[in-house]
Amino acid sequence: MARSENTASAPPAPPIDDETVAELDTWWRAANYLSVGQIYLLGNALLREPLKAEHVKPRLLGHWGTTPGLNFIYAHLNRAIRDRDLDTIFVAGPGHGGPAVVASSYLDGTYSEIYSDIDRSVTGVQKLMRQFSFPGGIPSHAAPETPGSIHEGGELGYALSHAYGAAFDNPGLLVAAVVGDGEAETGPLATSWHSNKFVDAAQDGVVLPILHLNGYKIANPTILARIPESELLDLMRGYGHEPFLFSADADEPHDEVHRRFATLLDEVLDRIAAIKASAADGTLEDRLRWPMIIFRTPKGWTGPKEVDGKKTEGSWRSHQVPLANARDTPEHTKLLEDWLRSYRPEELFDEDGVLIPLATALAPVGDRRMSANPHANGGLLRRDLRLPDFRDYAVEVAEPGGSTAEATKVLGTWMADLMRLNPDNFRLFGPDEVNSNRLSPVFDVTDRQWDAITVEGDDHLARAGRVMEVLSEHQCQGWLEGYLLTGRHGVFTSYEAFIHIVDSMLNQHAKWLKVARTLPWRRPISSLNYLLSSHVWRQDHNGFSHQDPGFIDFVVNKKADVVRVYLPFDANTLLSTYDHCLRTTDYVNVVVAGKQPTANWLTMDEAIAHCTRGLGIFEWAGTEVAGEEPDVVLACAGDVPTLETLAAAKILRRHLPDLKVRVVNVVDLMRLQTESEHPHGMSDAAYNALFTTDKPVIFAYHGYPWLIHRLTYRRAGHDNLHVRGYKEEGTTTTPFDMVMLNDLDRFHLVIDVLDRVPGLAERSGALRQNMQDARIHARQYTREYGEDIPEVANWGWPDDESGRTTSQAGTDTGGDNA
Amino acid sequence: MARSENTASAPPAPPIDDETVAELDTWWRAANYLSVGQIYLLGNALLREPLKAEHVKPRLLGHWGTTPGLNFIYAHLNRAIRDRDLDTIFVAGPGHGGPAVVASSYLDGTYSEIYSDIDRSVTGVQKLMRQFSFPGGIPSHAAPETPGSIHEGGELGYALSHAYGAAFDNPGLLVAAVVGDGEAETGPLATSWHSNKFVDAAQDGVVLPILHLNGYKIANPTILARIPESELLDLMRGYGHEPFLFSADADEPHDEVHRRFATLLDEVLDRIAAIKASAADGTLEDRLRWPMIIFRTPKGWTGPKEVDGKKTEGSWRSHQVPLANARDTPEHTKLLEDWLRSYRPEELFDEDGVLIPLATALAPVGDRRMSANPHANGGLLRRDLRLPDFRDYAVEVAEPGGSTAEATKVLGTWMADLMRLNPDNFRLFGPDEVNSNRLSPVFDVTDRQWDAITVEGDDHLARAGRVMEVLSEHQCQGWLEGYLLTGRHGVFTSYEAFIHIVDSMLNQHAKWLKVARTLPWRRPISSLNYLLSSHVWRQDHNGFSHQDPGFIDFVVNKKADVVRVYLPFDANTLLSTYDHCLRTTDYVNVVVAGKQPTANWLTMDEAIAHCTRGLGIFEWAGTEVAGEEPDVVLACAGDVPTLETLAAAKILRRHLPDLKVRVVNVVDLMRLQTESEHPHGMSDAAYNALFTTDKPVIFAYHGYPWLIHRLTYRRAGHDNLHVRGYKEEGTTTTPFDMVMLNDLDRFHLVIDVLDRVPGLAERSGALRQNMQDARIHARQYTREYGEDIPEVANWGWPDDESGRTTSQAGTDTGGDNA
Repeated sequence: MARSENTASAPPAPPIDDETVAELDTWWRAANYLSVGQIYLLGNALLREPLKAEHVKPRLLGHWGTTPGLNFIYAHLNRAIRDRDLDTIFVAGPGHGGPAVVASSYLDGTYSEIYSDIDRSVTGVQKLMRQFSFPGGIPSHAAPETPGSIHEGGELGYALSHAYGAAFDNPGLLVAAVVGDGEAETGPLATSWHSNKFVDAAQDGVVLPILHLNGYKIANPTILARIPESELLDLMRGYGHEPFLFSADADEPHDEVHRRFATLLDEVLDRIAAIKASAADGTLEDRLRWPMIIFRTPKGWTGPKEVDGKKTEGSWRSHQVPLANARDTPEHTKLLEDWLRSYRPEELFDEDGVLIPLATALAPVGDRRMSANPHANGGLLRRDLRLPDFRDYAVEVAEPGGSTAEATKVLGTWMADLMRLNPDNFRLFGPDEVNSNRLSPVFDVTDRQWDAITVEGDDHLARAGRVMEVLSEHQCQGWLEGYLLTGRHGVFTSYEAFIHIVDSMLNQHAKWLKVARTLPWRRPISSLNYLLSSHVWRQDHNGFSHQDPGFIDFVVNKKADVVRVYLPFDANTLLSTYDHCLRTTDYVNVVVAGKQPTANWLTMDEAIAHCTRGLGIFEWAGTEVAGEEPDVVLACAGDVPTLETLAAAKILRRHLPDLKVRVVNVVDLMRLQTESEHPHGMSDAAYNALFTTDKPVIFAYHGYPWLIHRLTYRRAGHDNLHVRGYKEEGTTTTPFDMVMLNDLDRFHLVIDVLDRVPGLAERSGALRQNMQDARIHARQYTREYGEDIPEVANWGWPDDESGRTTSQAGTDTGGDNA
Repeated sequence: MARSENTASAPPAPPIDDETVAELDTWWRAANYLSVGQIYLLGNALLREPLKAEHVKPRLLGHWGTTPGLNFIYAHLNRAIRDRDLDTIFVAGPGHGGPAVVASSYLDGTYSEIYSDIDRSVTGVQKLMRQFSFPGGIPSHAAPETPGSIHEGGELGYALSHAYGAAFDNPGLLVAAVVGDGEAETGPLATSWHSNKFVDAAQDGVVLPILHLNGYKIANPTILARIPESELLDLMRGYGHEPFLFSADADEPHDEVHRRFATLLDEVLDRIAAIKASAADGTLEDRLRWPMIIFRTPKGWTGPKEVDGKKTEGSWRSHQVPLANARDTPEHTKLLEDWLRSYRPEELFDEDGVLIPLATALAPVGDRRMSANPHANGGLLRRDLRLPDFRDYAVEVAEPGGSTAEATKVLGTWMADLMRLNPDNFRLFGPDEVNSNRLSPVFDVTDRQWDAITVEGDDHLARAGRVMEVLSEHQCQGWLEGYLLTGRHGVFTSYEAFIHIVDSMLNQHAKWLKVARTLPWRRPISSLNYLLSSHVWRQDHNGFSHQDPGFIDFVVNKKADVVRVYLPFDANTLLSTYDHCLRTTDYVNVVVAGKQPTANWLTMDEAIAHCTRGLGIFEWAGTEVAGEEPDVVLACAGDVPTLETLAAAKILRRHLPDLKVRVVNVVDLMRLQTESEHPHGMSDAAYNALFTTDKPVIFAYHGYPWLIHRLTYRRAGHDNLHVRGYKEEGTTTTPFDMVMLNDLDRFHLVIDVLDRVPGLAERSGALRQNMQDARIHARQYTREYGEDIPEVANWGWPDDESGRTTSQAGTDTGGDNA
């Protein structure tokens, strides 16, 4: 049964009756009234007396323009939810229309249930209005504070990505996503229309995009409102949608508009129902086109037609506050009063300030209310993952450096089983880098979800799968955010250098988490987990454009409550770290790990201890003497820095066996901070026990050196800390050349030690020169042969010369990263 | 004359002759041969002997998949340039196809002209191949090192934005922009198709997008290759283009493919010529559709059909190195040799290794070569701006704080005249925030460029204009980069919080500048200038989502040679700063400035002196005694912190007249660093003369506090530095509430002084408590009235109580920011 036949044979939807029209219009008027009131009113909330200047807020803030359209759609969706018992959430792409979503959730009762002080009374309405964009109140945008929202309204562009993320693995869910025509100009939104190639009609829910074409941005028309309608329809068809066009102008009687839109919405929902039915009975056609609605209305619909002789309704002048001088200019106060009274508030509220039944009749019941739908408070639905025991995936490490592995590939084997155990609430997202980042074992269990054309020879593409690959970091991030915010789990794997593409999205998500944590009714959601491989130290060949370790710096700027940064350096530490990350909630976990074959340093037991402490001494690597302070501390964080540090330690052991060297590795970067700065922070005593207060510390770090200075600048020994890290000197090299270029190589680390331990340089002139010569030789060799010198390429740890045992035991510093 | 009629009446282009076909195919074979050689060959460059393992590079790196398509297009464009004398540059969206652009510029002779060591000889070819992705050589992507490139190939998504930026104000230029179908999935690329609504056929050049549909990314098919052709055509029509579809499969004889494509390209170029002609004679139709080409070819076209029994040509397996074991596996070595010989190198080079004339016959002459076109080395064409004398736009400042202005609006009056004086090489870019950021005076001179539908009442929309507004920071940044890289000037104005959207783009641009500065043949281009208004301290009402001062932190991570950060605090300092920025080259200048009415502090002469020093003492604001060290230094950077610092100084002056307070303001943030870290850095002596070595310094800073620590941590007085800045505590407030929330308010700064000047707290208990009470009162007031307390709202500087004169003279610290 083809979809179109099915639709053609369905009887036309009956027009809605007059009572429903009255319910729709009364709801809409009430929502608009409450919206205007939020923007303007400090007092006289129900207009029980003539409006005076002192009733108007002294600072007028907020966005009217998009608000009436949002209110209209919300009302009509309620009607459909009631009639069809739909499970629906609402994504307000133009989230600056905060007054609309707040008003709507007040009308359906959710707002008063959550914020009991804002009840259904005169004072309740008064407080609702007053708090909006008011000191100590709520933001002017949809925000964590807004019931029913999973979508911050501050930064535009992610409405559809969030909506699809919410729909994945929620086969019964309808996500109504309003896309603003301003927002539609952003890059992330422009590509997110293609999300329809990644949604499976059987396994996933449905996204209904509603493009709200109100024509204007802050001061400009919008592109999509100013191309011929035929182009706009082509564009939507080109995106793979079946567009349904709806236009309303300011002069059309509202009852008629309601009738027409309700009919169109029914047609669209019938179409969706037919597709879902086909998917359920296995008769889905190959190339289905999900419907979408183009909803063209005046901007600031029902607002003042003109202000000071200038067109306002249907113009960019409606974008924010159309009557900017409503407090200071009597004529504007009067205009505002007329505008408010046009919604007939006296008919909407009874004498106690309680909304009349007709104004709220459309509200669905209980969880069916879009403001109360648990999908929009995902923590309510979140189930812990069934995590396979990561210890079972451990690599054997008979002695430090005694085996090699591709750390992310090992992680992939664990993740594959994780997907097996959690077939409906975990997904892996990436910009076409799952294979490149060596997570390919997951394809033993699942496929890439792909709802476009397939051809013979395609590699693990399927209509339903748990790997989401699209060449857009914005899409990956947005999908994952939507997936997490609706109570599921996921990982975003990407190249370290290009994850900056989503800096601003992460920013907003971290802010969301920070605020959500303060709202008791918002339940914790799973952490947003990054796995950044293809990191800066392995971009010797791709070159400078692929080198940037600064995402860590960016993340560390966010609230300490929310961010965690881990640098596991081998397979077992990566397993242990990731097991931890997937158990956490409300964090952003940034894990940077290597994908290249490299030595394994710790057994699983050692790895667990080390990762739980977050950092510790590699006793097997150092030459310190029990009961004495070391002469120098070699610290390291990250796989390549750890390798080079161990290599430096080995050189020092051979050439300066009496030098007391301590090797400290840091996996959990936040441990370096003080307790007051970060929940993972260490006490000064613990820090000093590891790093000393007065000995030179040579710190080989994965990223920009000064981040380590920042994290440690309050520490007693900070003046003795010397950090080697990435310096932006990128050119085309080999791996070892790359570390040499940044003075982070073993030879230079040895020189650093010689230069910084008092008196050592003077008695080690030959060694110092040998180190310099080794670097020159190594570079010359790469220039000739195109690969690293054999002694580096074939270097291994087990220190057969020293005869030491290689048992490993860190020093417990009393902290943990749980 | 309508475009379509014109086209219809044009005679069909004659098919190209056999000689041209031979030229095209020989060029293409030569380019492909040189490309494969770059990826694989260490020796035996001309295959004069059987290929052995040692001729193959030990590390095989690079991207073959896109390369033959790029080579094909390049060859055909050369043919068209030659036949039509076109002025054309080439933007390689799939810039990882570095071998193609390098090979092409070697074929047209440019490469050897620039890099004389890579000449036309056996050793020249040898070196060309060896250097590719080889230690000390060139990156595997199109890069600054690549002649003819304005487009880094590392990060995908900006090909069309760069192309349109290049086309603006270059009416004679054709920008051929190849868009990869992988790249096409990115958000920035998906919206950049809409650039065609912002290009004027008369004033601007032409962008010809060529969507290279080779079907695969790293490991996945591409979306656009896997939707029905009808959808793809709809999409391109929806974007406003006239699509021309071209398909070639692997089995079609190459001569036939050349013939067909040349014919199609001629048709497209005729269409473009007709549009340009209509524009020139004023007969342009309203809704023109620029042509674009969909170019569908196998991925890795002409490469190995199969490797190890797996399909390779026409598959994602061709993406990078199709024969990964060409050195280690004899069968692969043989396959590689067969592949290379399929291009018949013995026919391409003479015995001296010089290319035969037929292989290079297509090369245009001189600057017409796309690799040598001066537009792609914009510094060659760059003219200094005619800058109106900014002193003429100064605001009157009879005494510090004696007048108020909206700083950015004053800047707008200067910028308007700047546009008047420079009508063809300066543009202003912004995401619909030019008005919001108060730069509206520019509309007295110019309009917003807008080539979509206009309606009555539109505000300064015109086909040709110098203000580029689109709600996509990616587009703004990409356009501006393209505009600058082709030798022009511009400013990007945006909200501070959302400029993080382009972090990653800025990253790549800064890397480009860093590398370009090392290439003597690349001439300096104008700096990339940001004007970030609507900054963090004025986002009390929009709330947390709009608060983020971290772009400065991000920028400071880039190479010191390239980045500059300025925080002018009033109208005159903003004018002086911006005049400086627009004179510079090869920098990224980040200027954060307020747009709200605020006090003016310095006369223009004072502002010039202060900005030239970059920082200095406000003697008029402090209470120090000549010849003595101050008791405390109040430092500040940014408009709001400066205001609060001055207010704190005023309180201290009144209540503790004997306390020796010094007020230091920093405009040029990089001055805080040491000379070794940044070219603007100050000597320790100069720093100590301002900040002392041992007195408390309370630093009120615009952004995240620890950036100031980072910049100063090597300074002697660093342990005495206490920074107040933004702390991510955002909630809905009023402006003064906002600074109180972050402890950056005047009252708290006074408390900081009391707590940090030894012995002061003990004798100032009442004052301390007054300050605390003042904060509590201020907060209570805002909660009740929704606005700041009158004593803050109406606060002014001129200190009538003290009777001091308000003359201002900074202390020369010996530096400058020129």
